[in-house]
Formats: sequence, C-alpha cells, structure tokens
Amino acid sequence: MELDFFFFFGSTHSYLSVMRIEELAAGAGILVNWRPFSVRALMREQGNTFHTISPRTAYMWRDIERRAAEHDLPFSRPPIWPTDPDQLANRVGIVAASEGWCPAYAKASFRSWYLDGTELGDLASLSAVLRELGKTPEDIIAKANSEAVRANYDSETDVARKLGVFGVPTFAVGREIFWGDDRLEQALAWAGGTHPAQRR
Amino acid sequence: MELDFFFFFGSTHSYLSVMRIEELAAGAGILVNWRPFSVRALMREQGNTFHTISPRTAYMWRDIERRAAEHDLPFSRPPIWPTDPDQLANRVGIVAASEGWCPAYAKASFRSWYLDGTELGDLASLSAVLRELGKTPEDIIAKANSEAVRANYDSETDVARKLGVFGVPTFAVGREIFWGDDRLEQALAWAGGTHPAQRR
Repeated sequence: MELDFFFFFGSTHSYLSVMRIEELAAGAGILVNWRPFSVRALMREQGNTFHTISPRTAYMWRDIERRAAEHDLPFSRPPIWPTDPDQLANRVGIVAASEGWCPAYAKASFRSWYLDGTELGDLASLSAVLRELGKTPEDIIAKANSEAVRANYDSETDVARKLGVFGVPTFAVGREIFWGDDRLEQALAWAGGTHPAQRR
Repeated sequence: MELDFFFFFGSTHSYLSVMRIEELAAGAGILVNWRPFSVRALMREQGNTFHTISPRTAYMWRDIERRAAEHDLPFSRPPIWPTDPDQLANRVGIVAASEGWCPAYAKASFRSWYLDGTELGDLASLSAVLRELGKTPEDIIAKANSEAVRANYDSETDVARKLGVFGVPTFAVGREIFWGDDRLEQALAWAGGTHPAQRR
C-alpha cells in the first residue's frame, strides 16, 4: 500500500504535512513516495493564484498556526514568502528523492525556512541543511543544476499536471487525489482501502 | 456560547455544513446564528474567483462527494451551478433568519438544489420549498424583494467583509474565523473554549 506525496519547497501548508506524514503513514503501514514538483508552474498556467496580501492570505497564516497547535507542532510565521524564485530547493528535493534522503532533507528545509526564518534555496542556508545531513553541498547543488535533474523536475510536474493537481500538498493514491494537509488522514484511509466513499 | 454561521445559498461546500451544523452544535451546547450574505460580492471584489471548468473545480466536486460519504450524507452533483444570479434564495434566507426558520429553510433549499436538481431562486421550486415549510410564497418573496431586506443583506455582507471573510462556509466566534466545512469541528471547539490554540 502506497501513497504519492506531491509537495513544494516554499508551500506554506506543506510544512504541516512534511512534519506529519512519516509517522502517520508508518502507523498505517503505508509507503510514501516524496515527490517535489513545480506547483508554481501549474498554478500559473491554471490562473489559480492568490495575492500575498488579502483576507484569504491573512486567514491562511492563522489557519496554519491553529492547525500546528492541534498537531502539537512548533509554529512561527516564516518571514520570507514567496521564496526561492529559482526553485533550487525543489530540485535538490528531486536529487534527495532519487537517493532516498528526501524526508530528512524536507524536514530540515522546512524547519530552516519556517522556524529559523532562512530563505529556501539561499546557498548558505541550503548548504547548512545539506551538511547537517552529511552531504557535500557543492556536489548536491551541481546535481540539482544539471540538465538531467531539471528534466526530472519538469517530468514530475507533468505527472502532477496529468493527475489534475492544482495545489499542494496533494496526496495521490493511483489517480485519486486529496488536496491539503487536512486531507492526509483521508488519503491514508484511501490507500488502506477503508475510506467510506470506497464502500458506496 | 455561540457561533456565527456565514453561508451562501449556491455555495457548493455549504451543503455539507447546512446538513451537519445543527446536530453538531446542539451536541456541543453551542447556539448557531445562521447568517446568509453575498459571498459572491466579496469574492469578486477580492479577485478571489475560480473557473467553473478547471482541475480545481473538478476536484471540488469529488471532495464534496467523498466528504458526504464520510458524513453519511446523500450526494448527487447539482446540475445547475452557479445558480440564482439574482440571489433571491439568499434574501429569502435573510427573511427566514429574522423570523427564526432559517435552518429548516436552508436544509430544504439545499436538498432541492443539490438532490432534486432545481435552480435556487427559481420561483416554482422556491415556492414549493416555502409551502413545505407552511409559508405563503408570495408574502415571503415580497419581503425578500423589499428595500429593507436588500439593505439587511448588504449589511450582513459588510459584517462578513469586516471580519475578513473570503469564502463560505465560514464560522465565526467573535473575530476568530474558520473557513470551510472541514473546520466546523474546530470552530465549535473554539466556541466552547477547548481548541488547542487557545491554550498556547
């Protein structure tokens, strides 16, 4: 039983899922595939954008703060958002996913961005995160900037596009998609075959 | 302990809350104020709109269908949406709220729209709903079209605007707002003073 976790380094709500999914999935016996992709590209092409200063955005931060409290996760509003125009942190995520260290990298990155207030993709803070994981920053960043990894990032984005993804985090079980950290439990139920809609 | 339920006749996700809120709130000992308003006006002025045909909209229907199954509510996708350009069903909601029969009216209206496939605000189906509730359709519709009720509808919309509402359903406990049917339980916890973020 497995689940695809589509997320984005720089997505505000992805913080909650990055912090929660490993433990929940392990408890349910579900394998998670960590799949960073460019939700930014999909939102732009679908005209599904929102203003950084608006009632909806003000609410978003408050919602995440309350939900962090519910899940007993630390919260402070990241000072830099949007972040990482080059999407380097995401391409490093592609490298990490292919080499099997994406969960640790994602958690360290979101902690650094959210809680320490660094910018995602900034060379100094990205290097610190990579060193913390025992990696050589120069090697990983060179891979992340290679044509092969750029192509892999684009093809992951295309997988998400074809599934009908429009935001993150999105959890997919085959072609069944669940949008939002608040749908994580439903997605795990679906992966396990116990969601009520599967019995209708 | 009370909670303001801001909703819109014609909002797809409001169906779930209209069907769920009475029983849940009663169980928690929370009084609910049913407050229809023009979310359409707020979404337009905030540039917070979405296309009726898009990945996000396709997902919306599937999400509601799955959530209806979770809550053991009937579901069929309403054939008419968007609906009621004149917002008459909402102004009747203002009349109903001021006279104390909004819950029954809202449930009957959403059933008629969602499950029977009628158009909200259509005179024949609206009259049938009102007769079912023991009301004289002509009288109620005349009130709903009066200047006083139009002004009341606008002032309710302004209350929502000033709270920072941007979508529906929204639950408000004082100035604390919760957006989406999936936040109903949190809002009730907040109204009861037991939400984890109230203890941080």
